[in-house]
Amino acid sequence: MEVKSAIEQKSLLSVLPPGKRARLRRLLFEFGPGHGTLMLLPIDQGIEHGPRDFFPNPASKDPEYQFRLAAEAGYSAIACQIGLAEKYYPDYAGQVPLILKVNGKTDVPPSDNALSTTNASVEDAVRLGADAVGYTLYVGSPRQDEDLHQLKGVREDCDRFGMPLVIWAYPRGSGIDKKGGQLSPYAIDYAARMAMEMGADVVKLNMPKPDPEKDKDSPAPYSELQWDEAEAIRHAVESAGRSLVVLSGGSRVDDDVVLNHTREIMDAGGSGVIFGRNVWQREWNDALEIIGQIKETLTGHVTRIP
Amino acid sequence: MEVKSAIEQKSLLSVLPPGKRARLRRLLFEFGPGHGTLMLLPIDQGIEHGPRDFFPNPASKDPEYQFRLAAEAGYSAIACQIGLAEKYYPDYAGQVPLILKVNGKTDVPPSDNALSTTNASVEDAVRLGADAVGYTLYVGSPRQDEDLHQLKGVREDCDRFGMPLVIWAYPRGSGIDKKGGQLSPYAIDYAARMAMEMGADVVKLNMPKPDPEKDKDSPAPYSELQWDEAEAIRHAVESAGRSLVVLSGGSRVDDDVVLNHTREIMDAGGSGVIFGRNVWQREWNDALEIIGQIKETLTGHVTRIP
Amino acid sequence: MEVKSAIEQKSLLSVLPPGKRARLRRLLFEFGPGHGTLMLLPIDQGIEHGPRDFFPNPASKDPEYQFRLAAEAGYSAIACQIGLAEKYYPDYAGQVPLILKVNGKTDVPPSDNALSTTNASVEDAVRLGADAVGYTLYVGSPRQDEDLHQLKGVREDCDRFGMPLVIWAYPRGSGIDKKGGQLSPYAIDYAARMAMEMGADVVKLNMPKPDPEKDKDSPAPYSELQWDEAEAIRHAVESAGRSLVVLSGGSRVDDDVVLNHTREIMDAGGSGVIFGRNVWQREWNDALEIIGQIKETLTGHVTRIP
Amino acid sequence: MEVKSAIEQKSLLSVLPPGKRARLRRLLFEFGPGHGTLMLLPIDQGIEHGPRDFFPNPASKDPEYQFRLAAEAGYSAIACQIGLAEKYYPDYAGQVPLILKVNGKTDVPPSDNALSTTNASVEDAVRLGADAVGYTLYVGSPRQDEDLHQLKGVREDCDRFGMPLVIWAYPRGSGIDKKGGQLSPYAIDYAARMAMEMGADVVKLNMPKPDPEKDKDSPAPYSELQWDEAEAIRHAVESAGRSLVVLSGGSRVDDDVVLNHTREIMDAGGSGVIFGRNVWQREWNDALEIIGQIKETLTGHVTRIP
Amino acid sequence: MEVKSAIEQKSLLSVLPPGKRARLRRLLFEFGPGHGTLMLLPIDQGIEHGPRDFFPNPASKDPEYQFRLAAEAGYSAIACQIGLAEKYYPDYAGQVPLILKVNGKTDVPPSDNALSTTNASVEDAVRLGADAVGYTLYVGSPRQDEDLHQLKGVREDCDRFGMPLVIWAYPRGSGIDKKGGQLSPYAIDYAARMAMEMGADVVKLNMPKPDPEKDKDSPAPYSELQWDEAEAIRHAVESAGRSLVVLSGGSRVDDDVVLNHTREIMDAGGSGVIFGRNVWQREWNDALEIIGQIKETLTGHVTRIP
Repeated sequence: MEVKSAIEQKSLLSVLPPGKRARLRRLLFEFGPGHGTLMLLPIDQGIEHGPRDFFPNPASKDPEYQFRLAAEAGYSAIACQIGLAEKYYPDYAGQVPLILKVNGKTDVPPSDNALSTTNASVEDAVRLGADAVGYTLYVGSPRQDEDLHQLKGVREDCDRFGMPLVIWAYPRGSGIDKKGGQLSPYAIDYAARMAMEMGADVVKLNMPKPDPEKDKDSPAPYSELQWDEAEAIRHAVESAGRSLVVLSGGSRVDDDVVLNHTREIMDAGGSGVIFGRNVWQREWNDALEIIGQIKETLTGHVTRIP
Repeated sequence: MEVKSAIEQKSLLSVLPPGKRARLRRLLFEFGPGHGTLMLLPIDQGIEHGPRDFFPNPASKDPEYQFRLAAEAGYSAIACQIGLAEKYYPDYAGQVPLILKVNGKTDVPPSDNALSTTNASVEDAVRLGADAVGYTLYVGSPRQDEDLHQLKGVREDCDRFGMPLVIWAYPRGSGIDKKGGQLSPYAIDYAARMAMEMGADVVKLNMPKPDPEKDKDSPAPYSELQWDEAEAIRHAVESAGRSLVVLSGGSRVDDDVVLNHTREIMDAGGSGVIFGRNVWQREWNDALEIIGQIKETLTGHVTRIP
Repeated sequence: MEVKSAIEQKSLLSVLPPGKRARLRRLLFEFGPGHGTLMLLPIDQGIEHGPRDFFPNPASKDPEYQFRLAAEAGYSAIACQIGLAEKYYPDYAGQVPLILKVNGKTDVPPSDNALSTTNASVEDAVRLGADAVGYTLYVGSPRQDEDLHQLKGVREDCDRFGMPLVIWAYPRGSGIDKKGGQLSPYAIDYAARMAMEMGADVVKLNMPKPDPEKDKDSPAPYSELQWDEAEAIRHAVESAGRSLVVLSGGSRVDDDVVLNHTREIMDAGGSGVIFGRNVWQREWNDALEIIGQIKETLTGHVTRIP
Repeated sequence: MEVKSAIEQKSLLSVLPPGKRARLRRLLFEFGPGHGTLMLLPIDQGIEHGPRDFFPNPASKDPEYQFRLAAEAGYSAIACQIGLAEKYYPDYAGQVPLILKVNGKTDVPPSDNALSTTNASVEDAVRLGADAVGYTLYVGSPRQDEDLHQLKGVREDCDRFGMPLVIWAYPRGSGIDKKGGQLSPYAIDYAARMAMEMGADVVKLNMPKPDPEKDKDSPAPYSELQWDEAEAIRHAVESAGRSLVVLSGGSRVDDDVVLNHTREIMDAGGSGVIFGRNVWQREWNDALEIIGQIKETLTGHVTRIP
Repeated sequence: MEVKSAIEQKSLLSVLPPGKRARLRRLLFEFGPGHGTLMLLPIDQGIEHGPRDFFPNPASKDPEYQFRLAAEAGYSAIACQIGLAEKYYPDYAGQVPLILKVNGKTDVPPSDNALSTTNASVEDAVRLGADAVGYTLYVGSPRQDEDLHQLKGVREDCDRFGMPLVIWAYPRGSGIDKKGGQLSPYAIDYAARMAMEMGADVVKLNMPKPDPEKDKDSPAPYSELQWDEAEAIRHAVESAGRSLVVLSGGSRVDDDVVLNHTREIMDAGGSGVIFGRNVWQREWNDALEIIGQIKETLTGHVTRIP
């Protein structure tokens, strides 16, 4: 028996119970680029980093900007915290699906012992007509005991309400720092598997950054692998198994990097991207321009049936 | 698309569910100066600082003083803790709206790891006929994990009971101290956004105090901005988006500073002020005098339709 | 408007809901010295200090001693923990009201971070026919976050069941030690206000001990006040507002000190005393003797209508 | 009024509600030596110390040994944890009463901050047909706050279900070590009172070991008392008031010590013994032999009517 | 009375309530090698160690590999976490029983204070049609207080739903390290007893590794015993009493070690094995080969009737 690549994974939708299937199908086929892809717009940077992320494009400080962008440019969904969901989503309900992010934190204190507690519930998501719930899991954090137990409650409620669960799978904390760091192939690979085993329907990953100097501190065999970025992300997508994978963007980079990453995640068997600053730190027309290119890249490189 | 200034924000009342709308409308239009303004009287200093705040005006030690002032001088609402609400508000029920403050603490221990736990519930507020609930959020505190999770419960109950939520958004803790301090434009701006994203209907902010020497420790671009007080508060009000903003007073200052701050918050698109010591540390007639001037300033500088 | 002295406070009973009013009235008028006074007998020293307090009068080791004393000498109420309430109170039910103390601790570990967790509930008090509930609040303790939140639950249950709440308001912990200590006028004054704002119907205070040497570490203006004992207790009683105040006794002192303290608290607008060791560390007839004198002093110095 | 010695205490059964009375009566009169005595067999050493305690008598490693001993030798009850209760008690149900011990811990980590969390509930005890519940309280431990609050839940459930509560009252932790140690008369006396005040129906105490060298660190007057073992246990039994007292055995000692201790606790007004290793570390016939002697000593020295 | 060896233990099934009996019987007799044996396949290494364990046999990274292996090679059950259970088990439901592992953690942070919090519930297991629940107990960890209390909840739910409880009994933490280490005969023996006393129906143990150098730090008499591996495991199986014991495998070893361990556990009165890496780190046919040999060894050495 051969290991099935991410591309050959059994259809996720076919194993999901009806509520999850109905909602997730909406994101994959009815909204956004469709064809089983996910193009997600995150707007949680205002709490994770503060308003400083809005300076490159002052218009982005008004949440209206991201909501209008998500609706008009045809996103699969917009992801945000409870405050935005309650005060800005009503005008766009039905026009673009909502992913309610249920935990979060500021970046003011150091993140050696990272834990992001919940500030909203799956029931809030149901009430607001959301089609999925987002949860940040700090894989490997010294406080993983609290994190995993908190996730239990969210996951159980997702099962109860038929709500798809998107896990922001972020390696973090002092233990990770000692073993290659949060972008090491080791850490991203582990995070992908953790998220899947903890019940994610969709896993959000950062692009791994192989770095021989740091990776030698990872456990074997990672300490000796010579993976490039594409190989590393492919392995991570495989580690996520039947869970769909979307690639995170991070701080703003060149257009060709954006599109290249989009291609790489799709070629690796991923299902799409969740780029925030790389999109909304641009002015309206520029944003539409890059969104068009991302969309084209996504639908042009579909390798997996969700 | 241009970023909408605080002044151009969509009406908050129009996006609120009926219970919140009915109650908040009472504060904005039926009581106090009206015209969509908020003139709030806080009397929680007895627990936050102890009775020492009452010495400048001994009459203020008797909570009757603040309740009578709030009712007779025509305040939008009085904000206090459960003990005062239960023992002094009954005589004024219907004469002035009540904001029940549901958490608080003494200032005896140091506040490096500030957290203010709840001592009352939203259900208490409902029972007592309050029109809003107040919550102190220590933005950026090392204990933000507990704070945000606790706020979740209060916010959910506010949603359940249709109770407006006023967040005292105070940057606090060792992390904030290292990045410019609790009155830095960076910290106040972050606090405004946090409160809005966590579900505040009204955000209470301190006036930022730009200080190039300290602000250089803030993250970019704040470290290099040359904002004056007015610009700093305008940005913070914008960061609060559709949430209304009221300005906090702090310790007693000169009359022209009081009125100047009132003008600045209104010009910035704020909705009013919540001055305590600057009002009730004065004798009765002096207090009425300054209240009259504040009221005039508020209604004379309305720039936003709530 | 003038500040109302404690003596001029509005009737507490008139603002209390019926359950609290009915029960508290029983203590103030139907049992004990009456005339709106409170003469309370505490027997929680067995857990707070251990049996060592019973050696001066071996008979006092048997809880029967205190129960019989409370019933036969005509106390307003006896205050004790759940074990005594369940095993000794039944014989005296109806003969003397019961205050069930719902938290407590031994004095074995140091009290730098004092917190007294609950070992009984308000529902226990209802079941046992108690007329009030007692709670020790360590004002200013580094663990005040837990204390205030725990008190919330007790206070809510008191509201639910119409049970009067007596708060043992004790300044305690390292922060208090640095600011003048637990008997400083500053600390006692703060404690009185805290208890009232947290929902106490009756506040139990220790007699402040002004000490210029230590008080200079208190925040201004306390650091410069030259209050004597009588002034200090008068201010503290005023800080408690509409909440009734009873004075705590502490370790055994001379008869004239006992009676002098009784006079001082009554003159200050307090409602009575809660002396334990000063009473039951005496043999039966001696105890009756001093109780008679206390009773006479109480009823002879009533200054406030509860 | 004279202090009542333990022997003169009012009947405990007469103040207990019917459920507790029915169950405790079974232990005191229907099973075991009867005549109001308690001969209890504890088998919780397997978790408190590990299997090492079973080596002196290998047969004792099989819990059948203790259960059969308890049933055939006529014990008042057997005390064990949930696992033994579920897997071994069924065969003996009705033949010997069960005391379900609801908390416990290994002795692997140090016990400076001792706390024994619950691993079973009072409801488990009801379901299994137990006649009492056992709880270990570490009197004076730095974690007493958690301990007392946890005990509250157990005690409340005991009250709800009419289940007698047996408290293993063990002084423990760094604070106790500094004040004479866990076997000092001070510590045992305090433990007895604590257990009674926290709601124990039966208190399990260790035999105090007066030691002038260590006792001088106890608070006065203990630091200066010259009690012998018999006086110390008599005072502790008195401190337990109406709660019944049983004496704990500890590690194996000579037969005459076993019997002498049995006599001392009965003469002091105690109700019996709970000897484990001193019994089941003996081979079957030896065990029956000493049990017979203990039984005779118990019934021959009854001084108190329970 | 002689101590009963593990082999002579009373039938476990006969003391179990019907739900547990029906489910456990399925594993022991209807699936797998039968004859009262347990051949379990664990696939929780992806979270306990990360994907690094899958490199020796890349096919094993796809959970399909283990599920298909378990079903086709005839396992008694497969043990995995919630994510795999929800996304991979549906295809095999009815073909191989499921043990839902309800807690787990990564190995990124150090394990001095090991605690594995729950990420799934017994109710999840019921919903998914599982036949048992798995729980990792870190025996002797400094956080045993939390561990034992958490286990209480799981055990109670198992009792409520008639779900067999399998305890992964792992000595762990700084206390264990100081007393001979996690594979010392002392530690394994203690762990076996703990698991049984805490309510395990099946106990999973590691093979003890006697080491005179380290064992001298164990408490007496372990410090002086000269047990070999077979004696050590036999004592541990006896300590588990009526609970069934399965032997854990650990990292991959030689075939003869695998089979020898299988023989030793069966000869000791154990009920089977739970080998993961030693099986699925082999290619398909190699895996089937060793599974066949394990199965033969198991059924050829049955010494105990479950």
